Amino acid sequence: MQNCSAARALEIVGERWSLLILRDALFRGFTRFSDFQRSLAIAPNVLAKRLDGFVIGGLLVRGKGRDPEAQHHYTPTEMGMGLKPVIIALTDWGDRWRAPNGPPVEFQHEGCGGRIKLLTRCSKCGISPRPREIAAIPIGQPRRRSRRP
Amino acid sequence: MQNCSAARALEIVGERWSLLILRDALFRGFTRFSDFQRSLAIAPNVLAKRLDGFVIGGLLVRGKGRDPEAQHHYTPTEMGMGLKPVIIALTDWGDRWRAPNGPPVEFQHEGCGGRIKLLTRCSKCGISPRPREIAAIPIGQPRRRSRRP
Repeated sequence: MQNCSAARALEIVGERWSLLILRDALFRGFTRFSDFQRSLAIAPNVLAKRLDGFVIGGLLVRGKGRDPEAQHHYTPTEMGMGLKPVIIALTDWGDRWRAPNGPPVEFQHEGCGGRIKLLTRCSKCGISPRPREIAAIPIGQPRRRSRRP
Repeated sequence: MQNCSAARALEIVGERWSLLILRDALFRGFTRFSDFQRSLAIAPNVLAKRLDGFVIGGLLVRGKGRDPEAQHHYTPTEMGMGLKPVIIALTDWGDRWRAPNGPPVEFQHEGCGGRIKLLTRCSKCGISPRPREIAAIPIGQPRRRSRRP
């Protein structure tokens, strides 16, 4: 396993179906096996495998109880909900580069109804830098043009 | 093709190798075929197929010129660079949920050396809502608890 958090994240969600299943679970409120299947037109065995993987990985919990129907329900955990920014980032990119008819959805703050934006911000100078100005630095390595005690 | 920008984005990058190749291209400054191959231990035919797909999709450009070596160089376009927030979002999630020894890298603003944070922000009330408070709303549908002219 590579010592990279993105690589570790992709071990769980690094595949197109996975992220589309999570999109439906996180943003469309889908919980039932049959709803995912209808939305994605995905083969039942592939869907079952992905959902099982998410349950094992801790992203979704399967319904419990005596009702056999409950076992076909899958609800996001906090860890699963934490992937919302990944879906939002993908959507932003698709809106900009792959939406000839304009963005089909927008993200909304349920508290006040305002529009949600995903942004990068520099914690030192406060700007939202362009992507070209963002570097990945191994932790422990000295920062450029800055001194830390 | 689903009318969803995340789905359209995933048509190009929705696979684990794709995002790891882009991570190396965007954040590690890799351009050479051989560097990607060494970093990822990926089969050459798979790597070639992914890189070709990114060139066709407009995320990378292949080097030109008479030097045959140049043709094995791949440089990110603005569209490709636009995927940095997706990698940052995946990394943030991995840092939180899959990094028992702490985050291996951090993102830095090249302009001032400050640390880059990715955050969601409500454009109306200004807060960074928790993931559970973020909904996806089809555009054209009325917003909750807010009126627009």
